[in-house]
Amino acid sequence: MKKFILIAFTLLLGTSAFAQQALFGGPSVESPVINPDGTVTFRYQAPKAIKVQLTGDFLPTQHMEYEMNGQKIAFDSPGVADLQERPGGVWEYTTPFVVEPEMYTYTFRVDGNSVVDPNNMFVNRDVASLTSVLLVPKAGARSDLYAIHKVPHGTVSKVWYHSDKAGFDRRLTVYTPAGYEKSKAKYPVLFVLHGIGGDEDAWVTQGRATQILDNLIARGQAKPMIVVFTNGNISEEAAPLENSTGYTRPTMSLPQTMEGSFETAFPEIVKFIESNYRTIGKKQGRAICGLSMGGFHTLYITLNNPDMFNYSGMFSAAIGTGSEQSATGNPEIYKDMDGKLATYFAKKPALLWIGIGKTDFLIQSNNDFRKKLDAAGYPYKYMETDGGHIWRNWRIYFSEFVPLLFK
Amino acid sequence: MKKFILIAFTLLLGTSAFAQQALFGGPSVESPVINPDGTVTFRYQAPKAIKVQLTGDFLPTQHMEYEMNGQKIAFDSPGVADLQERPGGVWEYTTPFVVEPEMYTYTFRVDGNSVVDPNNMFVNRDVASLTSVLLVPKAGARSDLYAIHKVPHGTVSKVWYHSDKAGFDRRLTVYTPAGYEKSKAKYPVLFVLHGIGGDEDAWVTQGRATQILDNLIARGQAKPMIVVFTNGNISEEAAPLENSTGYTRPTMSLPQTMEGSFETAFPEIVKFIESNYRTIGKKQGRAICGLSMGGFHTLYITLNNPDMFNYSGMFSAAIGTGSEQSATGNPEIYKDMDGKLATYFAKKPALLWIGIGKTDFLIQSNNDFRKKLDAAGYPYKYMETDGGHIWRNWRIYFSEFVPLLFK
Repeated sequence: MKKFILIAFTLLLGTSAFAQQALFGGPSVESPVINPDGTVTFRYQAPKAIKVQLTGDFLPTQHMEYEMNGQKIAFDSPGVADLQERPGGVWEYTTPFVVEPEMYTYTFRVDGNSVVDPNNMFVNRDVASLTSVLLVPKAGARSDLYAIHKVPHGTVSKVWYHSDKAGFDRRLTVYTPAGYEKSKAKYPVLFVLHGIGGDEDAWVTQGRATQILDNLIARGQAKPMIVVFTNGNISEEAAPLENSTGYTRPTMSLPQTMEGSFETAFPEIVKFIESNYRTIGKKQGRAICGLSMGGFHTLYITLNNPDMFNYSGMFSAAIGTGSEQSATGNPEIYKDMDGKLATYFAKKPALLWIGIGKTDFLIQSNNDFRKKLDAAGYPYKYMETDGGHIWRNWRIYFSEFVPLLFK
Repeated sequence: MKKFILIAFTLLLGTSAFAQQALFGGPSVESPVINPDGTVTFRYQAPKAIKVQLTGDFLPTQHMEYEMNGQKIAFDSPGVADLQERPGGVWEYTTPFVVEPEMYTYTFRVDGNSVVDPNNMFVNRDVASLTSVLLVPKAGARSDLYAIHKVPHGTVSKVWYHSDKAGFDRRLTVYTPAGYEKSKAKYPVLFVLHGIGGDEDAWVTQGRATQILDNLIARGQAKPMIVVFTNGNISEEAAPLENSTGYTRPTMSLPQTMEGSFETAFPEIVKFIESNYRTIGKKQGRAICGLSMGGFHTLYITLNNPDMFNYSGMFSAAIGTGSEQSATGNPEIYKDMDGKLATYFAKKPALLWIGIGKTDFLIQSNNDFRKKLDAAGYPYKYMETDGGHIWRNWRIYFSEFVPLLFK
């Protein structure tokens, strides 16, 4: 009887009745598998399916064009590959090429329906979509920064602060570097802002920012720093399902995202961090960066608080979209760009950093902004990469920007 | 042109090319929807599917029996419901009953394949299965403790400590109550242990422990306390995909889980917490509890350190499975139960708490243990609930146990 209980136990213990069922009857195939030759195999168990496909951003892209309001919208969409059915109803696909070290997302299409890989527990949410993640690290490649290594790890915390502007408590993700708890030192702080549709989780899930920080700091390539990932949707307490509104569906059209509210309220976040953590607490010890909408926020927060940040990074910044003009109430924060630029640069900030992809739909407005800087002789660093408005680029920009800080 | 860019922008901004595609072509149905009458509607868009079903632990259970090594294993499996196809290829099911306030898990079965709800971003991992989550809160019901309310929120941190026993850094989840950062007070500490197949994430995802703590503390029903969720798999740095081993599949058969290693190493976690947080640092300020394997760990950690914990909680504890006898090396930690019980109770601990479900496969061994306590006249508190070895019960036990601590 003891033996029987032990067997039942190893099968059942610690799981719900529901998971028990999954353990008995669930899928047992391995997917994804990074093969020794650098190809990757994907498997999906579906004995009754007619067609199983895979779409992911490691597959050759397809050029797509949409027409909207008489205007063409063109972008490169991930390719699609067919899986082959093997005996036992397991569908399989092995890339006919080496998958370059990088972090990718993919989903299966089973008879036309998009589903995440049930055998891959690595699932990210991007706005209102779930995708499976394929991380291919390689020693020496940049993607090695995205992997978890046996190095000292910082602490990653979900922290709530009270926003007077919003009128409720709001959530931040805060990274404190390894050694912070035992140290008596004061640390510099980097504030990191997400894009529209994102939240305080985006940079630590899709951005792999805490892994990048752990690894850069362990290599001695970045200074130990506190890093604060804000939620730029001032109408939101926290990421979807992490706030009191229940099943509110993630959306790209939250109110008050690009009309000055978040930028105006930003100093309350700086104040909260500096009164709760051991920080340097002055311009020399503060940096800010953001992607897309967060790059737009970064620009206006920086220009309206010219004594606050010594380092600012604009990643694929959403400038020149007309948001400043369409913002209700014609907020002061978006006015007098030229005057504010003059004031900002007169105070000699250590770094204004701009990065964008060659095929980003925002490259023209970023080029226009750089022309303005060039014409006035204002210094900045610039990085142009392949590809468009994608997380691969934002991880690159983050891992290029961070080593330049607080030197 | 400005207008065009603004439209493209609201569609594209802040998302990867991959998500852009999802936004254009992805599902747009709402699921799950908790209806005003208390029924719940589930939807799944699958124009090409032949059959779409739903399985979840809110559906009437089916009694299942398996035969293994000549022994019968019986358990209740969640029921299955058929969705009906509506115009547009959206499949739909509305429960013909009010779904009682509780936290549930479910998946769709599309032509036999189990998939999570692509419209529900609330996904939990249970060992190696992904499931969608349905949380039905209701004011006054216990499940209201599992919901996020506009109350002061504690900080939830992922923290790494060095384990001498394991020889590497390991991850903990640490909850510090609202107000901890600004307070100068010393706090009591509760250590919370998971079941086999779980890790340091389990209690905060499936267990909703941090929501329960926020709500109980806000109501004045529990003392503010630090709560530490350990990883009881000593061979593991951290939860799957949160450690340096990459795509290691979650498993129920990790080495060194129930052979004394974790229990023996446990004091190093207590020491780490007490040297990094403001704690009371003595028996009166320490509690421990755990579910299933974690209940087993709780018992042996408590008995082998009789001066360490004033409060111990065994939730569906996996005692009497023969693990003690089959453990390699016949470890000291499992020996002399009677002598250790005598020593432990002689020191007058404030609380030994035992909870188990009426149909739990471990109820007989728990009854045997209670008979032993009764025979010796040792005091304990006992709670018996409906149902078996399931998370619903563990959430109940946790929310009953926590208010009893540090009073």
